[in-house]
Amino acid sequence: MTGDDLKVKRYPDRAVYDKTELMRILGDNMFCNVSFISGNIPFSIPMMYSSREMSVYLHGSPDSRLINFIKSGGTFSIEIVKIRGLVLATHIKDNSVNYESAVAIGKGMEVQDLEEKSDSFMALCEKIAGGMWDYYHQPSDDDLRHVSVIKIDIEDFSVKIRKGGPKEDNPDGGLWTGTLDLECHYSNPTAYGKFSGDLPDFLKSILRGK
Amino acid sequence: MTGDDLKVKRYPDRAVYDKTELMRILGDNMFCNVSFISGNIPFSIPMMYSSREMSVYLHGSPDSRLINFIKSGGTFSIEIVKIRGLVLATHIKDNSVNYESAVAIGKGMEVQDLEEKSDSFMALCEKIAGGMWDYYHQPSDDDLRHVSVIKIDIEDFSVKIRKGGPKEDNPDGGLWTGTLDLECHYSNPTAYGKFSGDLPDFLKSILRGK
Repeated sequence: MTGDDLKVKRYPDRAVYDKTELMRILGDNMFCNVSFISGNIPFSIPMMYSSREMSVYLHGSPDSRLINFIKSGGTFSIEIVKIRGLVLATHIKDNSVNYESAVAIGKGMEVQDLEEKSDSFMALCEKIAGGMWDYYHQPSDDDLRHVSVIKIDIEDFSVKIRKGGPKEDNPDGGLWTGTLDLECHYSNPTAYGKFSGDLPDFLKSILRGK
Repeated sequence: MTGDDLKVKRYPDRAVYDKTELMRILGDNMFCNVSFISGNIPFSIPMMYSSREMSVYLHGSPDSRLINFIKSGGTFSIEIVKIRGLVLATHIKDNSVNYESAVAIGKGMEVQDLEEKSDSFMALCEKIAGGMWDYYHQPSDDDLRHVSVIKIDIEDFSVKIRKGGPKEDNPDGGLWTGTLDLECHYSNPTAYGKFSGDLPDFLKSILRGK
């Protein structure tokens, strides 16, 4: 049943069911949406994640409604979406968006091993910036015991990718048509603490104009 | 029932139930996630939208599974998430993210009026870039008849916002702590058509370094 629900019905030429592609997308992103049902209504909530091969790690408070929902065997899915840019056709009806997206389902279990918990935090830090994990105070064993880490082993998934230029039957040669990339970067570091030294190198490396 | 499901349980101090805030977030963004249930599994799918006051317009093919699900009275919700930046504490366990998010539920109905359909496309174009609607070929009546536009009147919602610096009990004064903004912009215009003239002004205005 689940496999069929994940099959891409619209634009099946954009669908990919290759684990390597999924793992690349998991590695390239750090936010996902977790979809779940509450009171018969489907909702989705954004969460940070890290991944290792076909497993996704979510972090949360032991009080979190969503963490407890997953731990207790509730049915959920995970979506990752990266908008790559706009596709502008000469007819507005033919406009599109370039993107990469993945939908995945699997079982979630709580991670008890403190080293595995710690590794999942390290992986998330390294996604943000190499060197961040070593610069800041890493979680102690006691810290790790007070946070919930959920590991999701992906059992089924689909990936959908749209790339390239516009597709329209009768483009107007007198108008500009093509793509714009959407670029995101970190900027404007704003200090809040008492520290008066330079911005650490690992942060400089992820700022615009590095 | 629905109102209770939308109440923010974790960090209730971050919750807002003000229509003005919701309409600002609707106006500031153009991608949402639509959550729905298929084969007993909750999924979410990204879609572009435009809005007018407390209504959201989604565009899709009349063949789209999701459009037909909403038209047929299926239960769904809409989520909008904007990640504003990273919040770096001196202890990794206290890191956070600044964001704005909205969750909304309501009934969806298909728009039949061609002028209202056209207006919803115009609103989406104007979100992307002022002047875009006038530069390109606008949809004809026939085009409009071949696309489905769903109007969702929002009946209940919650907004959640996290802003400002890190919150930690014992910050280490010897380490940099603060926020980084996440900035997104369009760049790298790539022409696909035969048009050899300058990039139109409305596009220049939304590129980085405008």
